[in-house]
Formats: sequence, structure tokens, C-alpha cells
Amino acid sequence: MSNTAQAQLGTVLAAGGQELADLLERTEDRLARVTDGHGDELSRHAGGTLAAGGKRLRPVLVFLSAQRPDDRLVAAGVAVELLHMATLVHDDVLDGAELRRGRPTVFANGGRAAATATGDLLFSRAFAELAATGSEEAVRALSTASSALARGELMQRADAWSEDVTPGRYLERCRLKTASLFEASCRLGAVFGGRPDLAGALGAFGERLGVAFQILDDVLDVSGPPERTGKPRGADLLDGTVTLPLILARESDPWLSGAVRCAEEAATVCDRIAATGALHAAREQALGYVAEAKRTVDDLELPDQRANALRLVADGVVERYA
Amino acid sequence: MSNTAQAQLGTVLAAGGQELADLLERTEDRLARVTDGHGDELSRHAGGTLAAGGKRLRPVLVFLSAQRPDDRLVAAGVAVELLHMATLVHDDVLDGAELRRGRPTVFANGGRAAATATGDLLFSRAFAELAATGSEEAVRALSTASSALARGELMQRADAWSEDVTPGRYLERCRLKTASLFEASCRLGAVFGGRPDLAGALGAFGERLGVAFQILDDVLDVSGPPERTGKPRGADLLDGTVTLPLILARESDPWLSGAVRCAEEAATVCDRIAATGALHAAREQALGYVAEAKRTVDDLELPDQRANALRLVADGVVERYA
Repeated sequence: MSNTAQAQLGTVLAAGGQELADLLERTEDRLARVTDGHGDELSRHAGGTLAAGGKRLRPVLVFLSAQRPDDRLVAAGVAVELLHMATLVHDDVLDGAELRRGRPTVFANGGRAAATATGDLLFSRAFAELAATGSEEAVRALSTASSALARGELMQRADAWSEDVTPGRYLERCRLKTASLFEASCRLGAVFGGRPDLAGALGAFGERLGVAFQILDDVLDVSGPPERTGKPRGADLLDGTVTLPLILARESDPWLSGAVRCAEEAATVCDRIAATGALHAAREQALGYVAEAKRTVDDLELPDQRANALRLVADGVVERYA
Repeated sequence: MSNTAQAQLGTVLAAGGQELADLLERTEDRLARVTDGHGDELSRHAGGTLAAGGKRLRPVLVFLSAQRPDDRLVAAGVAVELLHMATLVHDDVLDGAELRRGRPTVFANGGRAAATATGDLLFSRAFAELAATGSEEAVRALSTASSALARGELMQRADAWSEDVTPGRYLERCRLKTASLFEASCRLGAVFGGRPDLAGALGAFGERLGVAFQILDDVLDVSGPPERTGKPRGADLLDGTVTLPLILARESDPWLSGAVRCAEEAATVCDRIAATGALHAAREQALGYVAEAKRTVDDLELPDQRANALRLVADGVVERYA
């Protein structure tokens, strides 16, 4: 995490108060134990994946969408993080990815079979944790998100290298593969946190934020710098992922359509995308989604402190890419 | 399914009465719809996998372990079948398997990404279906089984080609990768079917049956014939799977230890294993587990019809390999 993002999370934590800090701590405790007792190898791989951390952004969304404390919130936070991790572990197998967040992946450490089984275990644990709340509605929300994640992943692979991906199709993919779990996180927080009436509205907040998050992630792939992203510029493009910056840029620079397949030219491709102004345009779209997300919050009658914390998280998603 | 096994299932169905037939029909209906609405590609792959059928042995175990009808039994039957299918789809990816039950696998039809995502979807749906019962205990049982399946699969791959696998370690693997879901199926039937007090005993019945099932499956790999199993003799051995017939045979024929790695000699290897009497010995062990399973039933005070049906299923597992 960059220093800026770290500071931003600090601001969110401060706005969320002791309550948020406690919930996050309990989430970490539970994540540290949830993979125990599944055999040495699986527990080691799954435990290592969870311990590698990350921003815990999805659990934060669960907690900030709640209006009062409830033990089931921790189960929900743990479940969304486990589901997120399960998909990352399986994606790394499919991509043959050796590193994630600067650490060796389960695939790198244990091979395909171990990583597939570790992902399966994390999937099971996600649903088992959430089912412990006794809420069918919650499990249904997680299952809907899980299905969307799988569809989004497939859509991305189906569209690899395609020259026909429209911005609309790209945005649909963002909704499926990223925003669906953001949405579910907010819904779960509302349901367990005493405001099931706000599940739809807070879900919409999460969805918009998730789309913005994915667009900005795709901007960062092109803009770098590598020391910040931990991977070379254009890494996703060179894997064939057709992102918004590329889609917008090739409208004005047709050379880009063919060039992306030539791995040696990654920096050139990124520079030419930047030269079209597509990064700025994509970023503007993301900011539009963030603004929409914040308006969703404005329309709700939430206590000031809680509304502020949600707006700060939305700003944090942008800040991460500033 | 062989004609013998078909006939045996007919006998079980007759013993289970109209009630069992109805539950199985509702399970098929639900399985046919459970994969709808997840995007064309995923729904097609997942639906095709489920429609390819199989014996539905695990749902049958759920239903026969119940002492009275209950809607939650269908959810449990669907869940155990979905979990079973999820693991098969992921195993096929890892094995690069093109055919299963004579049909192209999801891996063959859609590639690694599609098959991984399809397995993930089936995992999610399994837990979502079961969670709809509102029973935390049931979801925990499924999650325990899911974890065991993953461990068993990893253990099998870790032991590939190993010359040090003891019969005890082999049996532990059978318990994890096969018997755990048989056990969970029986437990779920007992819990939802009005006899939670019998969950432990019926779970033990299922576990013993599952171990026998796996041993007999491994015997069949060596004995064939291919027209019955749908794969060449020794296919599992040539994949490096160390099964009980091989473990027992190489005690008396050390030549077998080295020979298995030579793919051309599959038939020779199978014949030499058979010549040691190891197939008979392995089969005897399986029959011992079946007898134990049936004794578990004898010790319970079940209505005659239900006890008979459970014994018939146990015999059916043997019959399948007669």
C-alpha cells in the first residue's frame, strides 16, 4: 500500500471510530484462524494467502454500511474477504502468476493442484462463515456475487485481445468481476447492521464504487509507475485484457489495435495510449462513478459520522490512484 | 451405468418406495434449474455437467438416511451432488481430462478458465442451496466435507508415484477424498429427516461405504474391462495414483515398483498386479467395510423397510463392481 493510501485508510479508520477498528481487528483474528485444521499443506497455503493482507476494503465496506454493531458483521467481513481471496488464488492459477503483492502466489509455492484446492477451500470457508449467521438472505447475496465474479472472469478471458469490446461491455464486465462483491459487502453490512431497508441503496453505493475501483486499476496498469504497482506498465494489456484506456485510445489511434500483441512494445503502447488523452478520459469516468456513489450517500438519512466515513472510503478509492 | 448397477438401483428405488422416487425426481428438477441465470457460458457448462447424470448416489444416501419427508432433504441432496460435481470439474482441469462418463468434460469444451469458473460456480451453488435450509449445522457438515475432499485430492497428488504409501495412508486418503462426502450425505439426511440423534451412526455407515466404494473403484481400474469402465485398464495407475491393489501387489512383486511409470506396459502391469492376488485381497478389504457399514445399520432401531433400503445401497456399491 502506498503511503498516501495508508494515510487515507487511517482517515477512514478515524472516521469509523473505535467500533470500526474493533471490527477489523476481530476480522483479522478470525481470518488468522479460519484456515486451521484443514491439513498442513492447505492450512499453510490458505493461511499464507490471508496473512499477506491487502486493504481489507470489502470488510471495511461491510462495517461502514452497518448502523449498529452486530456479531454477524464480522462473519460477513470474513466471508467477503475469503471469497475475494478464493478468486485471486484461482485467477493466479489460470494466469500462471508467480507473484501477487510482491509475494509468491500459492501457484508459485505449491503448483496448480495445491492452488486449485486452496481456492476451493477458501470458497467453502466463505460460505460456511456466512451461513453461521443463520441468514439465508446473506448467503444468497454472497452466492449471487460469487456467480457474478465467475461470469466476469470468463467474460474477460472471452474478450481477450478482442478489438470489438465496447465501453458498455467493458463496464458490464467491471460490474460483474469487481463491483458485484463491493455491492454484496454493503448489502450485508446494511442487513446485519440494523438497516435492511437501506440494503438496496448502500448496495448501489458499493456497486458504483466498485466500477470506479476497477476503471482506476486499469488506468494504473497503463500509467504505472511500476514501483507503485509492483508490476511493469501494461502488464494487463499484454495479457490480452482489453481495458477502458485501450478502448478509448484506439478510437483515435488505430495503430494501437494491432500493437498490443507485441510484448516488447509495452512502454510504447502505454505512452501512445497516454498521448491520446484516454487515461484522463477513463479517470473522468471513474470520478463520475465515485461522485454518483457519494450522491447515493447524500440521499440517505445517515448519521453524519457514518455518511462521512462512507464518503471518505469513496475518496480513498480515488486517492489510491492519485 | 452397467445393467447390473441399473438393476440394483431399481431394487433400491423399490425398497425406498414412492417417497424416494419423488425426492429423486425433485432433485433432478432442481439440478436442472440451479445453474440458470449465471450467463450463457457458465449456465451451459454447469448445466451440461449436471445433466450428464451419474448415479446420484450421494442424494440417495441423504434420502435413505431420513426417517420422514422434509423439504430440506431435497436441498441437501442437491447440495451434495453439486459439491461432488464441482470437485470433478476441477479435477478434470488438473488432470487435463477430455472425457468423463464418455462425454467431453467442461475442460475439453471450454478450456481451463471456463472449467475453473464452472467448478467455482457449482461450489457456490452447493452452499447457497444448503444455506436456504437455514441450518448452520448442515452447512458446517458440508464445509467439513468440502475441506476433506480438497485435502484428499492434494494427498493423492502429493503421493503420486510414491513407493512409500502404506495401506493405512491409502485408507486415510479414501476417507478424505471419497468417504467424507458419503458421511456428510448420511448426516444431512438424519438431521433433516427427523433423526438428528442418528447423525453420528448413519454418518459412520456412509463413511464405511465410501471407503469401500473407493477401494472397489481402484480395483476396477486394474481389472477393467475397458468397455465397462469407459477408460483403458490401469489409467489411474499411469497417472501416478498409488492404489491399494498396487500397494498390496508390490509387496510380493517388487518389479511393479518401477514398472508403473512406463506407459506402454499398462496391461502388463495390470496383469502382474492381478497375478499376485492383490485384486482379491483389496476386494476383501472393501467387502469388510461394506459388512461393517451394514452392521452399523443392524445396530440401529430403524423401520425394516428403511434398514433394508440402506443395506441394499451397500450391496449396490459392491454389485457395481461384481
